[in-house]
Amino acid sequence: MMERAYSPRDHEWDTRVRSSFAQQGAMRLLGASIAELSPGSCTIVLPFREELSQQHGYFHAGITSAIADSAGGYAGLTLFPANAEVLTVEFKINLIAPAQDGLLRAEGNVVRSGRTLTICAVEVSVERDGARIPCALMQQTLIRIDHHR
Amino acid sequence: MMERAYSPRDHEWDTRVRSSFAQQGAMRLLGASIAELSPGSCTIVLPFREELSQQHGYFHAGITSAIADSAGGYAGLTLFPANAEVLTVEFKINLIAPAQDGLLRAEGNVVRSGRTLTICAVEVSVERDGARIPCALMQQTLIRIDHHR
Amino acid sequence: MMERAYSPRDHEWDTRVRSSFAQQGAMRLLGASIAELSPGSCTIVLPFREELSQQHGYFHAGITSAIADSAGGYAGLTLFPANAEVLTVEFKINLIAPAQDGLLRAEGNVVRSGRTLTICAVEVSVERDGARIPCALMQQTLIRIDHHR
Amino acid sequence: MMERAYSPRDHEWDTRVRSSFAQQGAMRLLGASIAELSPGSCTIVLPFREELSQQHGYFHAGITSAIADSAGGYAGLTLFPANAEVLTVEFKINLIAPAQDGLLRAEGNVVRSGRTLTICAVEVSVERDGARIPCALMQQTLIRIDHHR
Repeated sequence: MMERAYSPRDHEWDTRVRSSFAQQGAMRLLGASIAELSPGSCTIVLPFREELSQQHGYFHAGITSAIADSAGGYAGLTLFPANAEVLTVEFKINLIAPAQDGLLRAEGNVVRSGRTLTICAVEVSVERDGARIPCALMQQTLIRIDHHR
Repeated sequence: MMERAYSPRDHEWDTRVRSSFAQQGAMRLLGASIAELSPGSCTIVLPFREELSQQHGYFHAGITSAIADSAGGYAGLTLFPANAEVLTVEFKINLIAPAQDGLLRAEGNVVRSGRTLTICAVEVSVERDGARIPCALMQQTLIRIDHHR
Repeated sequence: MMERAYSPRDHEWDTRVRSSFAQQGAMRLLGASIAELSPGSCTIVLPFREELSQQHGYFHAGITSAIADSAGGYAGLTLFPANAEVLTVEFKINLIAPAQDGLLRAEGNVVRSGRTLTICAVEVSVERDGARIPCALMQQTLIRIDHHR
Repeated sequence: MMERAYSPRDHEWDTRVRSSFAQQGAMRLLGASIAELSPGSCTIVLPFREELSQQHGYFHAGITSAIADSAGGYAGLTLFPANAEVLTVEFKINLIAPAQDGLLRAEGNVVRSGRTLTICAVEVSVERDGARIPCALMQQTLIRIDHHR
């Protein structure tokens, strides 16, 4: 269901997404960065450190959610016209395995790109010692906000 | 549905929850603290600062989710026996209004406390200029992990 | 968060909702009916019968979801203008206890009524022998579709 | 994330799932049947008829959810030991396009099979005039209930 090829409506989609990401204080605070970006898809990575943990030393579920939310949001934004912004309406995330150490990787993909709403699926895994272990699965709804001048 | 009175099974529930919270590197990094704690309920607050923002200067949805997740998780933990830990199975959050400035407040309440699974509802609001504006609503499933020695 | 008083924008909201409900073949097939209706709120009831069961003789989770979805949808529709329709964008439901026999009751309440999106909370309980047992909790997003002539 | 090969623990998984499905009064009432079944996967189909509709003549979101819930639940049950039953803990569904006429098809796949909890992803599409149109996406959590004798 997620294998479609998408055509961006704004040829400056790449610059626009990266510049928006750079404005997210929260991603900077966490230490997250964009690893891959293509129309309808965005991957965000975050190296483990203790400041990102919950009480057992795993990545905090909320931190995992934060980069997953941004990965989905920017996957959606790649397909928006130049004057449009993205907001998260809602998401649901299953934490399928505790994520510890290594590199957290959230890959967001647009599943449905509508005029008002965009639906994304985000898969989060943790890379450690050459293996990639699935650790969370998110389903997300985004809304497009058009700026009229 | 959320108005029940709960009796904790471990009389040291308060100490146990606060000590677990203190171990969450993520809550420290964000600047969050426990504002209220009672059996089946936990409120976490987080003052706004730019480092917690998304690209429009609002609280990042993932940050909002992080404190909501902890509020629900610790609401659940108050009712667990002494040797049990809590993990988030999944949650779903609706961002119902952008939250900006002020004090973010996530109030988690246990809705159903089962032997294995606990269901929580978390309401997030932002306090600014004396008003409290609802900004997110979470429904969350927790699992109890018993430690056998 | 759900205690607000709402003012309908269309004075024929009651007739409009009941007439829409009457057109839902699915509610007729199940045997569901509207028990209560007020601005921002709708309660749907469904008496148990074997045809609504899953393999252990409980109400099927999907049937529980169906009346919860309608209860939320019509809670939302009470607040829409005359020329607008409602569609479910998404919902999330926790089945907190098996529901058996008796009368299934889904009470939907609007939590946030926006121009495009409406967020509802739905509580499902089962009434049996004079007691009301909570059995499911839904969080739902609706979209308003305006008809232009 | 969903492409793993699973080995059933009970060699009578096929019979056990079909016999459980046959006991679901709700699936019979709707007219649903199992189209495909393999370890970790179950597809349920449902031909359109007016009795399954919402007010605009589309498949009711709750009906779509009902077969998606069963598809996920039975995908999970294929991997359970002989004495175990499955219950839905919760699910979240996005209705990504209205489904009308044709054949509704819900394909459930196990994403993570744990000792207590199983996570499934369910894709729902509608087949009409030879085309298959995605119409809903579900993420679901199941719990395994062991019967001890």
